[in-house]
Amino acid sequence: MELQEIIKEKGRLFMGEEVPDEYLTDPYIEEIPDVYAVALPTRHEEVVELVKFAKEKELTIIARGAGTGVAGAQVPIHGQELIIDVKLMNQIIDLDEETFTLTVEPGVLVGDIHQYVEALGYFYPPDPASKHSSIGGNVATNAGGIRAVKYGVTRDYVREMTVVLPSGEEMTLGSLNIKSSSGYDLLDLFIGSEGTLGITTEIKLRLLPLPEVEQTMLISFEDVFKATEGALAILASGADPSEIELFEKEAVYYAEEHLGYPLQTQLGEAYLLVTLDGNDELELKARINTIIEDVEPLSLEVLSFTDPDEARKAKLIRDNILIGLMEFTQYEMLDEVVPINKFAELIHYTKGLQEKHGLSVLNFGHSGDGNVHTILMRGDLTDEEWQTRRKALLDDLYKKVKELGGLPSAEHGIGTVKKSYLAQMTDDVNLHYMRKIKEVFDPENRLNPGKLF
Amino acid sequence: MELQEIIKEKGRLFMGEEVPDEYLTDPYIEEIPDVYAVALPTRHEEVVELVKFAKEKELTIIARGAGTGVAGAQVPIHGQELIIDVKLMNQIIDLDEETFTLTVEPGVLVGDIHQYVEALGYFYPPDPASKHSSIGGNVATNAGGIRAVKYGVTRDYVREMTVVLPSGEEMTLGSLNIKSSSGYDLLDLFIGSEGTLGITTEIKLRLLPLPEVEQTMLISFEDVFKATEGALAILASGADPSEIELFEKEAVYYAEEHLGYPLQTQLGEAYLLVTLDGNDELELKARINTIIEDVEPLSLEVLSFTDPDEARKAKLIRDNILIGLMEFTQYEMLDEVVPINKFAELIHYTKGLQEKHGLSVLNFGHSGDGNVHTILMRGDLTDEEWQTRRKALLDDLYKKVKELGGLPSAEHGIGTVKKSYLAQMTDDVNLHYMRKIKEVFDPENRLNPGKLF
Ligand SMILES: Cc1cc2nc3c(=O)[nH]c(=O)nc-3n(C[C@H](O)[C@H](O)[C@H](O)COP(=O)(O)OP(=O)(O)OC[C@H]3O[C@@H](n4cnc5c(N)ncnc54)[C@H](O)[C@@H]3O)c2cc1C
Ligand SMILES: Cc1cc2nc3c(=O)[nH]c(=O)nc-3n(C[C@H](O)[C@H](O)[C@H](O)COP(=O)(O)OP(=O)(O)OC[C@H]3O[C@@H](n4cnc5c(N)ncnc54)[C@H](O)[C@@H]3O)c2cc1C
Repeated sequence: MELQEIIKEKGRLFMGEEVPDEYLTDPYIEEIPDVYAVALPTRHEEVVELVKFAKEKELTIIARGAGTGVAGAQVPIHGQELIIDVKLMNQIIDLDEETFTLTVEPGVLVGDIHQYVEALGYFYPPDPASKHSSIGGNVATNAGGIRAVKYGVTRDYVREMTVVLPSGEEMTLGSLNIKSSSGYDLLDLFIGSEGTLGITTEIKLRLLPLPEVEQTMLISFEDVFKATEGALAILASGADPSEIELFEKEAVYYAEEHLGYPLQTQLGEAYLLVTLDGNDELELKARINTIIEDVEPLSLEVLSFTDPDEARKAKLIRDNILIGLMEFTQYEMLDEVVPINKFAELIHYTKGLQEKHGLSVLNFGHSGDGNVHTILMRGDLTDEEWQTRRKALLDDLYKKVKELGGLPSAEHGIGTVKKSYLAQMTDDVNLHYMRKIKEVFDPENRLNPGKLF
Repeated sequence: MELQEIIKEKGRLFMGEEVPDEYLTDPYIEEIPDVYAVALPTRHEEVVELVKFAKEKELTIIARGAGTGVAGAQVPIHGQELIIDVKLMNQIIDLDEETFTLTVEPGVLVGDIHQYVEALGYFYPPDPASKHSSIGGNVATNAGGIRAVKYGVTRDYVREMTVVLPSGEEMTLGSLNIKSSSGYDLLDLFIGSEGTLGITTEIKLRLLPLPEVEQTMLISFEDVFKATEGALAILASGADPSEIELFEKEAVYYAEEHLGYPLQTQLGEAYLLVTLDGNDELELKARINTIIEDVEPLSLEVLSFTDPDEARKAKLIRDNILIGLMEFTQYEMLDEVVPINKFAELIHYTKGLQEKHGLSVLNFGHSGDGNVHTILMRGDLTDEEWQTRRKALLDDLYKKVKELGGLPSAEHGIGTVKKSYLAQMTDDVNLHYMRKIKEVFDPENRLNPGKLF
């Protein structure tokens, strides 16, 4: 069988030279080899046939969603890969209101899921800043986002999924049952496996009822250390915030320039953007007051937005830091994570690295769950300076992360770019058994080989 | 090396004939063969040495906690097993208030964990009725309990654990990091694996702050179908109950007899016991009122206990159904689970089986998460009648569970007693890969072989 017999429609198959540039460029991977083909299936059955084709022809396969990954996991690295891009499998199949379950194809964008379910009074909490990433990619990287502190991550919202294995077999993982003690948990094994174990073709997501009230606060601090103290105080207050985002004034600058309006506070050097949600106005007020009491002594200013438009404006600043920064400099975004009580120490350490390595460092992140996005900024460094310095800084930084009991990736994945750091931070015995599990599902090492480990 | 050199203390090692009866009797398994020995280690290092000893001597190993399992998973079935009973590894090692983490040895009883952390203002939500089960056993069976509807199950509270593999290697799974996208999720693979992949020697549990207020309601209904309707209405109300327990009047009778006082309502044939918790008295009241509004039209009586003693008395009735029943008849307790919208249909079906098979059936269960404990009562049936009828009834029942998209076990595990039903309800491809994973960690099939599949 030829590929053209599986994907008959023109525009859904690109062979060798025809492959569009978007598949062959990536900000994190410099040299991308040519690929065998890119196929865009529209149905589960086509994915099965594509996988069988690859098996027959001994081709390596890469599953791809929206291509927003920042770890190089969706990028070809060997040459002559078959890329199976599921972005056209983008149907919302069913909303089951009795079990609060949304059935989707893997190519649906997470932003579209939010829009769809919220209009109907439901809530899908995982909320990566990349609204244009696909739910299949979110599952493959166990994506997080700003609401993880209260609601958890993608893993916590996948009830069931169908995967195509490298053998061409199909398997349904998980179920609609809320509890199970009925055999090994294969579902959680596949979540976060970065497309190395199977290709997801359908996902059943758990929804919640949409919270009825929400309020956002913006709190300014003298410096980033005071702000991390503030974050810990809020966590300890029992006020149960759904978001505690931390960012530095220096970072805000880029978003302000990009958006053309200033953040509502200009005091201090660091900020917390805190959101609370719930179903009762009065109860929400009570929780906001708890926070005010606890953080006022630590902070310079506490703004509590009753106007949702003001809240939206502050959130847009947070969301546009990276986009703004892009206009000024090349940068590298990390997503290291440490236990919550080590967060301040990590931030402190990254600031110290600036001078040592001659490289500007910004931090923003999900301070509610110990996940920092450290940003290395290239500025006007030459190619060589940038490469040498960033490498030296990363080595130091990840060593510290390891020392603090942390991990290289909280929500972006390991892909190719963090492989060596994962190896450093993971016990050999764990890596050994991960490789053995890979062999179980993919004995011919066909599916996204060379990623993760 | 001999066993006596590993476990030097008398009273911590029983060889062959000396093995106490408790290891050789089980309500669910009739014929239990003799075992090689029972060893009771007090330290991780002893577990490692015991496993290495078993490997050298080619012995089969069974890990055992408190022995409360109801699936036969902790019971010898081959003969000449080495039982590693961790009940003396029962120290609470550390409470880290910064990360809300409790570090325990596997033999600590879950009831003792509740007592310990609650006295300090913390909360460990998983709450199996068997307070005298060990946390290691809870993890191995992914134990649930009455608070799962709001708080989830054991799986949701394990941050990290140390296991000894059948090879004698040690491995630490998970971490204190709240988020991770750093390699395969081995932790969740081991949780619920019923002691077939490794022996847990240390566990780090996630705690929550103890809720400040709690209130319990008792609602009576005409029959069990109305009661399940009531449960669904409560779930849909957004009132976020922490417990929705359902039981039939017929079941209450046994607890009343055992405890010597009546349930506070005697109306109707079925009841819901609903608990709400939170941090704000007024907000709790508002949620209780929502429930009252929604269930009043469906129910005969709604009692809301403001006196905690009354709440305690009602809960004791629920907790003593099985203990009371034991005084009247031999019984078999199931723990099947179905998607929440199929709960009523399942209950309806089980009631219909009574006449068909000439066997009395009681239902009680966690109606908030689709998990029914169906009880088959032997009454005065002969041994042969009991065995034939229960088998025929189980075959029908599990067929229905499968048809409804359910699973054989929500929280007790498969062990030996539900193996054939797991096989019926699980796709071959899933079972195949479960077996392959077993082979990865236990190529010599040394650890609890013949359980699960
Ligand atoms: C500006 C920006 C902001 C971001 N913010 C966040 C954030 O806040 N939180 C967060 O968690 N991430 C964030 N990310 C990272 C990114 O969006 C995620 O990694 C995303 O989950 C990847 O989804 P995708 O559809 O783009 O997948 P791709 O990039 O196409 O692929 C990523 C990985 O998933 C695998 N994959 C994709 N689809 C499938 C499938 N159907 N079956 C099997 N494997 C598949 C690929 O093989 C690859 O390993 C951000 C990225 C950008 C660029
Ligand atoms: C009256 C009664 C009520 C119950 N109510 C509930 C309930 O509400 N919810 C619920 O979920 N369960 C309930 N159970 C079931 C039971 O308590 C659980 O299965 C419990 O989790 C088993 O713990 P254990 O320490 O007794 O383990 P054991 O019975 O000793 O062993 C059970 C399994 O765990 C494995 N295991 C034990 N310790 C380890 C270890 N350290 N490392 C690796 N594997 C290990 C064993 O090999 C075996 O497979 C109830 C049981 C009874 C008798």
